[in-house]
Amino acid sequence: MNLKIAVLSGDGIGPEVTKESVKVLKAVAEVYGHTFEFQEALVGAIAIYEKENPLPEETLALCKSSDAVLFGAIGDPKYDNNPDAKVRPEQGLLKLRKELGLFANIRPITAYDSLLEKSPLKKEIIQGTDMVIYRELTGGIYFGEKKLNEDKTIASDLCEYSQIEIERIAHLAFKAAQVRRKKVTLVDKANVLETSRLWRRVVTALSKQYPDVTLDFLFVDNAAMQMILNPSQFDVILTENMFGDIISDEGSVIGGSIGLLASASVGDGTALFEPIHGSYPQATGKNIANPIASILSAAMLLGHFGLNEEAKRIQEAVDRTLKNNIVSVDINKENPSSTSLIGDVIAEMI
Amino acid sequence: MNLKIAVLSGDGIGPEVTKESVKVLKAVAEVYGHTFEFQEALVGAIAIYEKENPLPEETLALCKSSDAVLFGAIGDPKYDNNPDAKVRPEQGLLKLRKELGLFANIRPITAYDSLLEKSPLKKEIIQGTDMVIYRELTGGIYFGEKKLNEDKTIASDLCEYSQIEIERIAHLAFKAAQVRRKKVTLVDKANVLETSRLWRRVVTALSKQYPDVTLDFLFVDNAAMQMILNPSQFDVILTENMFGDIISDEGSVIGGSIGLLASASVGDGTALFEPIHGSYPQATGKNIANPIASILSAAMLLGHFGLNEEAKRIQEAVDRTLKNNIVSVDINKENPSSTSLIGDVIAEMI
Ligand SMILES: CC(C)[C@H](C(=O)O)[C@@H](O)C(=O)O
Ligand SMILES: CC(C)[C@H](C(=O)O)[C@@H](O)C(=O)O
Repeated sequence: MNLKIAVLSGDGIGPEVTKESVKVLKAVAEVYGHTFEFQEALVGAIAIYEKENPLPEETLALCKSSDAVLFGAIGDPKYDNNPDAKVRPEQGLLKLRKELGLFANIRPITAYDSLLEKSPLKKEIIQGTDMVIYRELTGGIYFGEKKLNEDKTIASDLCEYSQIEIERIAHLAFKAAQVRRKKVTLVDKANVLETSRLWRRVVTALSKQYPDVTLDFLFVDNAAMQMILNPSQFDVILTENMFGDIISDEGSVIGGSIGLLASASVGDGTALFEPIHGSYPQATGKNIANPIASILSAAMLLGHFGLNEEAKRIQEAVDRTLKNNIVSVDINKENPSSTSLIGDVIAEMI
Repeated sequence: MNLKIAVLSGDGIGPEVTKESVKVLKAVAEVYGHTFEFQEALVGAIAIYEKENPLPEETLALCKSSDAVLFGAIGDPKYDNNPDAKVRPEQGLLKLRKELGLFANIRPITAYDSLLEKSPLKKEIIQGTDMVIYRELTGGIYFGEKKLNEDKTIASDLCEYSQIEIERIAHLAFKAAQVRRKKVTLVDKANVLETSRLWRRVVTALSKQYPDVTLDFLFVDNAAMQMILNPSQFDVILTENMFGDIISDEGSVIGGSIGLLASASVGDGTALFEPIHGSYPQATGKNIANPIASILSAAMLLGHFGLNEEAKRIQEAVDRTLKNNIVSVDINKENPSSTSLIGDVIAEMI
């Protein structure tokens, strides 16, 4: 297969971890006789520095003309602590999601047997956890109108959802559930929010088309508890943008390290694959970041194009490095392996 | 001291647990020679059934003319699963918060030594946890304009904050930190939301008045992780309404049971004290609910009026019942005590 892959490694540890997933994809291409063409482009804080734009025109054009985007990370402390910055790295990612129509962010969360001891949660709590979160990604309060009055004393953000926005991601979630454990949990705050009540109404109606899938509901505050009290109860979680952001990052603690979690963003256009961790500025340039989330994002990329055997091969190589304790400092403080070594080992196994 | 206390026990397990905290308050009154006058009123689903109003006029009037409100719980599954209901139990609580000007909800979270084993988190993670969450309670997306278009295909909720709303609760949080470990963590999503940037700007400016207190910032998605990865890092958490709802319920898992967590809501008018758990319909009428959250809310009530010794006496009695394993089924599945027995024992100890 020929695939044109745009590589947007972004800020912080983004470039380091993305380098390793490209390495692994190249190994896959070699072994399976595929042609993967990689082209790099700027996004985020680095794009602001070099092009005064967190998503330069040529980056967007490249993404649109590619088959997939491999994304690193975005964000810079310089902006985080400056509420008055007009241009922000995150705008690059948000605009890219919107422009590519990436309305569904898919985040699988599983507990690796070899890492059960690493989790802050007790082993008996996390054992058997195998869920996937479908987070709506181009609507809600992230994209609604933002206002700040002249004298900067009143601000607002609008959370808005339409039936169509809810339906298109709900279909994906129900289809995923059909080939999993056949359960969808809608997370909302329908006892308070109008948008949540719309979600509940639309998803309930649509669920009739999937009679083999059970639908249940959780208020987001309760979901934040259940995620920790009993994570193995979940199969597919479906939720809006902001709740999905919070709940999926919370869920990332289950597996013992956020450095293991991949995500796929899909929708109308080119799909995008990114680790769920951020730019982690403190670790930048030290060759200590965990590349596995990025490598597993590359595996999701392959799976997206039906290259399931190849994706599985990556997954198995990752499992083996974990079992053999070839892991970064987030998982093994005493005897960590470097970012590049882990990438080498996984590429080698393939 | 003479105190006029309005008792709004509400729905589900509300009446059962509130009965026990009233019992305990009566014991305190007897021992310390106070006069506590209790008057009951309807709120929530029960008020809808009996008065067609989740917050009847006479309930509000009673609250306004009382020194404090002891609140039970609110909510009914009948409404949760009906997005089309016009009148909802939660409206009673939200309106009450607004009418009494209860802009700050204060939720302490500690790990009890005697319960370290009960938590889903590992002992070494939760040991030493001692934080208090200041959640803004009368602003943000809960109270902003809600819209639903005619054909019910588009809905919106507005999140709005003003400088004054932020300042008044921020002052309380900083003052609390001054007599604690002198650290305030602001939880927001300033990389995306305009309201969060206003919070960051206002709180940063105001922090200059408290040079002895350190201020730091966490994005809400990261906060949802840190709450589980390293809860003992927190002293005072300050946050807006919705984030506070999610983060504080998440934090409730640390102590091993949400049935232990009390809260105080304070502001311009009569203060209100309530357990953070909800109406827990499945347990209603079974005499199995944990009354400790309500009893500790009563202790916060006493503390609010400077009756610190009395509050401490309740806290100590609670500690002793926990140590002696006189606990409800949420904490001890094998050999649980009933709601009323726990109340009796604590009242007796006092
Ligand atoms: C960087 C930020 C805008 C982004 C988000 O909140 O969507 C990130 O936290 C994520 O979850 O992908
Ligand atoms: C019942 C509901 C409106 C309420 C809230 O979200 O404020 C509850 O969850 C709470 O946290 O007190």
